[in-house]
Amino acid sequence: SRSLRLAVIPGDGIGQEVVAQGLRVLTAVLPADVKVETTEYDLGARRYHATGETLPDSVLAELKTQDAILLGAIGDPSVPSGVLERGLLLKLRFAFDHHINLRPGKLFPGVASPLAGDPVIDFVVVREGTEGPYVGNGGSLRTGTEHEVATEVSLNTAFGIERVVRDAYRRAAARPRRKLTLVHKNNVLVHAGHLWTRIFEQVGREFPEVTTDYLHVDAATIFFVTQPERFDVIVTDNLFGDILTDLAAAVTGGIGLAASGNINPSGAFPSMFEPVHGSAPDIAGQGKADPTATVLSVAMLLEHLGFADEAAKVEAAVAADLTERAGARSTSQVGDALVARVSG
Amino acid sequence: SRSLRLAVIPGDGIGQEVVAQGLRVLTAVLPADVKVETTEYDLGARRYHATGETLPDSVLAELKTQDAILLGAIGDPSVPSGVLERGLLLKLRFAFDHHINLRPGKLFPGVASPLAGDPVIDFVVVREGTEGPYVGNGGSLRTGTEHEVATEVSLNTAFGIERVVRDAYRRAAARPRRKLTLVHKNNVLVHAGHLWTRIFEQVGREFPEVTTDYLHVDAATIFFVTQPERFDVIVTDNLFGDILTDLAAAVTGGIGLAASGNINPSGAFPSMFEPVHGSAPDIAGQGKADPTATVLSVAMLLEHLGFADEAAKVEAAVAADLTERAGARSTSQVGDALVARVSG
Ligand SMILES: CC(C)[C@H](C(=O)O)[C@@H](O)C(=O)O
Ligand SMILES: CC(C)[C@H](C(=O)O)[C@@H](O)C(=O)O
Repeated sequence: SRSLRLAVIPGDGIGQEVVAQGLRVLTAVLPADVKVETTEYDLGARRYHATGETLPDSVLAELKTQDAILLGAIGDPSVPSGVLERGLLLKLRFAFDHHINLRPGKLFPGVASPLAGDPVIDFVVVREGTEGPYVGNGGSLRTGTEHEVATEVSLNTAFGIERVVRDAYRRAAARPRRKLTLVHKNNVLVHAGHLWTRIFEQVGREFPEVTTDYLHVDAATIFFVTQPERFDVIVTDNLFGDILTDLAAAVTGGIGLAASGNINPSGAFPSMFEPVHGSAPDIAGQGKADPTATVLSVAMLLEHLGFADEAAKVEAAVAADLTERAGARSTSQVGDALVARVSG
Repeated sequence: SRSLRLAVIPGDGIGQEVVAQGLRVLTAVLPADVKVETTEYDLGARRYHATGETLPDSVLAELKTQDAILLGAIGDPSVPSGVLERGLLLKLRFAFDHHINLRPGKLFPGVASPLAGDPVIDFVVVREGTEGPYVGNGGSLRTGTEHEVATEVSLNTAFGIERVVRDAYRRAAARPRRKLTLVHKNNVLVHAGHLWTRIFEQVGREFPEVTTDYLHVDAATIFFVTQPERFDVIVTDNLFGDILTDLAAAVTGGIGLAASGNINPSGAFPSMFEPVHGSAPDIAGQGKADPTATVLSVAMLLEHLGFADEAAKVEAAVAADLTERAGARSTSQVGDALVARVSG
């Protein structure tokens, strides 16, 4: 019998509610001989207010020993902007070297897109997760005065870019369309941009079967709404990936369906799976948050841990459920429907 | 009799064609007693290939003496990415301290949006034009090797932010809805983000009649496609503004209609007006580029130089023309139609 050690960080707002349904589906889909051991970690706004801690070293050390992490949502208006994001979410991504931030942009049949004309959307964004303007390398001078100067430094390394670019090529090569688009802003951010472009071309020589192109990030947003079917796999920098994947979520029916994986392919540290949406404090505790993005993140988690059939089963259950949705359902009703489907 | 000294930089690709129509409309709409003196400057890919120059100091000195600049488009695939952008376009924006980069996002009646459900879109983005990641403060180490490291520094000053934020408040206060949205990413880019947020709140105290809110840039892209009617005036950083205004162009019917002004409100240097679109080398020389974005940029130029009635007339001509468009028209046919309308 196999076992799976899973860290669960429900976090803030609707996090608890959606994670509960994700775990139900996970348990239901796994074969009986797989033992799931979950450990819940109390992290987020509540703990921050109670103890001042965002991610204590002891917790980080424990998390390190787990097979994977399922995270609900982090953030609350009562905590200053940036504290939990940098002290918890980004700290985990950096500490566990989650350099592949994987975010599918898929419009499921039956889901309404805000775009006219029933577009076909099925791409995946491979966002770099450990570099760029996210490194926390900034500062300010004469802070709080009329003479304040503030900087933010984007750090980019050949090493960091090459591994995410190669990962993206591999994913593109494994998909039917075999197309990879690099998104950057190499006409303005010339140093980082030229490094990305050089490595993109270099690694591309190993994948002659993959068709490539390049788009500036501003132009990419245009194609996301006018021609989303042109995209297959996209590889991009941490910040551009952040922006593009929210836009991707919007055009594929909303942030309530968007899944993500923060992946360390080496397995040296646990990878972390989380819905792209936030903690939505306005609807928290009302049992009406859509758990689908979390369930799809569970599918990514299963795939990552080698349960490919189970991952496919969860995704199929979501796809089937989405074609039949009618009327508003509660968080647990969606969970019930999905549990029933994967158990069938 | 008044006179207007106008520098014209047609630039590359379709630049020449669209600028020609913009100038026809400009001449047609101005009162007979206004003498327009245009000086054309040969800048762009052709000159770069011929002489290696992007923007010689002598040309910069001449441009400085003009009342305004009308620019077509810059860029050609034969020139390495960044050379003309940084050596010409951005050099002008920085040399003439164009700190207000003004970009309306307006869906004209009769224009099809890629968004479903006939949204009402009428906002304006006030993009900072002289700071942020556009300052050209980056570099690389071990360039070209597997150990390359590249940086890009975003520079932000209280002085630079305050002037653009105050300008945006003024514009918001003068519009019927009186709403101003700050867009940044202050949960990750905490130093720059907190500086923007602080100044936004501080200057806001001078404008109690303006309603304000804040959005992270990723969330803003979602609202651009799901709820564009929520925006009135948006103020944001140079890079976020670049991205958001292309997205704004896309949802309001395309880059062929998007106008922009690079404005120095002090008048110490000439302001520069240009369509948001690029040089579109694929359709250059065929007389089929839509000159509407350039004509709308001419309206912004007129407004800036104190010809408010004429500016309104040009915008009304475009609005009327757009409701009646049927079939493909050539660049000059669109020009003919607009000239006829403003002369009427
Ligand atoms: C909460 C924030 C730090 C985070 C990010 O910017 O990466 C979020 O927007 C995301 O996309 O996961
Ligand atoms: C061409 C490029 C330098 C420019 C920018 O990034 O500002 C363009 O995209 C724009 O929006 O005017």
